[in-house]
Amino acid sequence: MKHARFFHEGRIVRGIVDGEVIIDQAGKEYSMESVQFWLPPLTPNHMIGLALNYADHAEELGLEKPAEPVLFIKPNSSLVGHKAPVYYPNGATYMHYENELAVVIGRGGRNIKHAYAYDHVSGYTIINDVTVRDFVNNFYRPPVRAKGHDTFGPMGPYFVEKENVPDVENLELRTYVNGELRQRGNTKDLMYSIPDIIEFVSSFMTLEPGDVLLTGTPKGISHVSPGDTMRLEIDGLGSLENPVLDGRTKVSTGGETCEQVQR
Amino acid sequence: MKHARFFHEGRIVRGIVDGEVIIDQAGKEYSMESVQFWLPPLTPNHMIGLALNYADHAEELGLEKPAEPVLFIKPNSSLVGHKAPVYYPNGATYMHYENELAVVIGRGGRNIKHAYAYDHVSGYTIINDVTVRDFVNNFYRPPVRAKGHDTFGPMGPYFVEKENVPDVENLELRTYVNGELRQRGNTKDLMYSIPDIIEFVSSFMTLEPGDVLLTGTPKGISHVSPGDTMRLEIDGLGSLENPVLDGRTKVSTGGETCEQVQR
Repeated sequence: MKHARFFHEGRIVRGIVDGEVIIDQAGKEYSMESVQFWLPPLTPNHMIGLALNYADHAEELGLEKPAEPVLFIKPNSSLVGHKAPVYYPNGATYMHYENELAVVIGRGGRNIKHAYAYDHVSGYTIINDVTVRDFVNNFYRPPVRAKGHDTFGPMGPYFVEKENVPDVENLELRTYVNGELRQRGNTKDLMYSIPDIIEFVSSFMTLEPGDVLLTGTPKGISHVSPGDTMRLEIDGLGSLENPVLDGRTKVSTGGETCEQVQR
Repeated sequence: MKHARFFHEGRIVRGIVDGEVIIDQAGKEYSMESVQFWLPPLTPNHMIGLALNYADHAEELGLEKPAEPVLFIKPNSSLVGHKAPVYYPNGATYMHYENELAVVIGRGGRNIKHAYAYDHVSGYTIINDVTVRDFVNNFYRPPVRAKGHDTFGPMGPYFVEKENVPDVENLELRTYVNGELRQRGNTKDLMYSIPDIIEFVSSFMTLEPGDVLLTGTPKGISHVSPGDTMRLEIDGLGSLENPVLDGRTKVSTGGETCEQVQR
């Protein structure tokens, strides 16, 4: 099953995606097209990301395969849903999308062995691991500021249970900017596989239900600017679309302490 | 007021610390001494840490003051309470304590200005930012594995409201190992002050109530081994004590997927 979450008439609606329709828990139908305010399909406690996990992307950056998985933590405050704006930080010179297969943990665990790793997975979704390249002075340790900005974590459009993803180790990823294909890869080219990542991360920290592992992005990153629209597709997981907007928006956050907010 | 949280007879008890006594919400008194199973006084959504924030510690490592605050995210799965064991990872050669003032966010915000930063603080506690030095090949980007191990985040013993901390910019920190003073510093020597940190972090991400900022550790880190006891004190915030135990403990985590667990 595919699970969606969105805002509608003052409440959060959870529903099951059936073709082009979402059916909520009361049986009410919404066409996918009519849903305006999508939420990330889930709220993980932790999002653990992998840098440099596709050989072609590492090559693109002129870097070698890391000796072990290179991890970072992406704050969940960066999450937004399908169709929500991603705000371009004021003064940034290079911002890019990263189309990534997100692995959702179903059964938590510690010291999970490779052979049993998939037993701990509940399903998958798409994450756009938006990054400001300006702040990445070390690819092996992306700083919090490069990937942690508010709105830098579009997730969705929905969560797909693993039973509905027949071969997760052979899914094509495609990213379009304003309709033009810019990035294309396949999960068969992951350097560290999903079981490798689960085994490594759980070797030192407890994975909890709902935690998300970002598996890295393939070759084909490029700059996006305010006005662009990013559309990320992964076979079987749908299409995650987000516009880039100028971050110099005046937003009231309810107090005298905040002046002009750059999202 | 000072707020404590602990496990007692099958439930989580919240209480107010009054001298050597904790009074729970029903008015029942517990002597501090009698409390066996402490919990971290709160569970933050995010813990944002600062590396290299005391000049003497940077000097001890032979490093310069960073051009901007150097951030990392410590997973909240690493948190444990006062008196809980910290497990020494199998095969590590150098593990150390880091005594740090933890700043707890009360009112969330984004783009918080320096002058108003303390309005967003609810209070303080102590964090022991335990680190395995083996995995720190870059001090400016401590990898997740170095500071993210389960049990590497003792917090407590309790949370102190800011009104009860008269001068947070002049608190002495002291760390004892087996009773011997090993680390001593003062928050007046922070390179990036609490308002600096709040302004910087909130410039790109939304701080939420309960989030915790770790302000860095002063000079005086040293190796600890299984059998040692770490005791961290900060003026007015109490004394946080945790033993170091060998991580090669056999723990059942309820399934065939987990064999020998190194906490």
